[in-house]
Amino acid sequence: MTVKQLPLPDLVDACLDLGVPGVGLWRDPVRSYGVEATAKLVRDAGLAVTTLCRGGFLTATDPRERAEAIADNRRAVEEAAALGTQVLVLVSGGLPAGSKDLHGARERIADALAELGPYAEQHGVRLAIEPLHPMFASDRCVVSTLTQALDLAERFPAHQVGVTVDTYHLWWDDTAPAQIARAGAQHRIHTFQVADWTTPLPEGVLNGRGQLGDGAIDFPTWKHHVDSAGYTGPIEVELFNETLWSRDGREVLRETAKRFVTHVLT
Amino acid sequence: MTVKQLPLPDLVDACLDLGVPGVGLWRDPVRSYGVEATAKLVRDAGLAVTTLCRGGFLTATDPRERAEAIADNRRAVEEAAALGTQVLVLVSGGLPAGSKDLHGARERIADALAELGPYAEQHGVRLAIEPLHPMFASDRCVVSTLTQALDLAERFPAHQVGVTVDTYHLWWDDTAPAQIARAGAQHRIHTFQVADWTTPLPEGVLNGRGQLGDGAIDFPTWKHHVDSAGYTGPIEVELFNETLWSRDGREVLRETAKRFVTHVLT
Repeated sequence: MTVKQLPLPDLVDACLDLGVPGVGLWRDPVRSYGVEATAKLVRDAGLAVTTLCRGGFLTATDPRERAEAIADNRRAVEEAAALGTQVLVLVSGGLPAGSKDLHGARERIADALAELGPYAEQHGVRLAIEPLHPMFASDRCVVSTLTQALDLAERFPAHQVGVTVDTYHLWWDDTAPAQIARAGAQHRIHTFQVADWTTPLPEGVLNGRGQLGDGAIDFPTWKHHVDSAGYTGPIEVELFNETLWSRDGREVLRETAKRFVTHVLT
Repeated sequence: MTVKQLPLPDLVDACLDLGVPGVGLWRDPVRSYGVEATAKLVRDAGLAVTTLCRGGFLTATDPRERAEAIADNRRAVEEAAALGTQVLVLVSGGLPAGSKDLHGARERIADALAELGPYAEQHGVRLAIEPLHPMFASDRCVVSTLTQALDLAERFPAHQVGVTVDTYHLWWDDTAPAQIARAGAQHRIHTFQVADWTTPLPEGVLNGRGQLGDGAIDFPTWKHHVDSAGYTGPIEVELFNETLWSRDGREVLRETAKRFVTHVLT
């Protein structure tokens, strides 16, 4: 998503050029290019698919909407398996129109996971609940903290349901480091994502994630927490940023790889 | 602030018209009108000043900036006392430019409170740390949760330092109800403010607070938490909203009072 302006073959080529060993894919471009075709593309290139983003949106109360969401998440699991990734990231969904019941919405996510967890397991895929920043609680994700994500995940086996740790969403929360340790002890850190926090936030707040190093986040400290929790998997850079999207994708990828080395790996 | 388009005499008059028994004032309009003149205005009208907003911005590292902030907060305490309110709301401040150290910034707030708490007590004023929504953590307030606010406040006597409970900032947090109980048991709820959560958020996210009833917040439940914690003081409606500011102030005040009865008091 950081370089969504790049068509998939160009993305794969640019990753190989830069020595980037893996890539997180989003469903829309994968489905446009074709799931099998994408799978062949990355397999032939020797590029790992770190995660598929995203399933979720499991909070509907309307039975038909709910059945459609479950069916769509089953397809997402199948797509993840076809792409050869073991992780499907879940953005859980916001409040249904007119609802003010956060607790009920969170419980409906648990209900859905009881169906989707075993289905994912059958496909060798783990679900990774992503807590989103509290500014998304009403319209995108009622799971706002790592504590809430783990409280949900713990109802299921770790090989079915874990969490996504994303610095952008968690950086402000002084309880998150202890929750990263809790997640690690349970082998529930299914992916680790980084983006920087910059202000002012743009209208709608979705596409204001900062390039690494431009903002307020102390990445080495967060990487230390995740390392200390025993996580050894890939680190994904996920920037939703209109300015980055308006630039040449290969240049943005090169800059991002360099920033990653300078600001995250140091 | 909800009707900042109204000059102070019109505001006082409109409150009397509507039977609104108290008003929270902001420093800028008070200083423009004159502190003593404002004090006389509200006193003559028999209108209570519920709080003065706001002191704070106590996170600077530069010694001169820091000394200026402390001096300004002392003046705010004096102004609060002159206006006859017992509560000065504190917005603690964000990260200094270039800093990524949230913990250090929170500790500097505590250092400042050690000076300001006794000074406030001498003036019969209590300081109310306001946790702001985590989307303000970098540029406005490093205190993002009621837990953090109470962890700071508890280092001081309750008659010096307590907290502001504001639905807009806390509504997403499932740990906040227990923290309201904690605050109440310690007599540290110094004010209770309400605003609704609406999306999409505007650019900069400051002035997007929703009119009561327009958004996602379940006010009766939050009022119940605050009531159960033993709070019997005023409830303030604090809406930062460009659309409301562009309308006739008396009409907005009338609408807000009606919404308050319908959506908060029910």
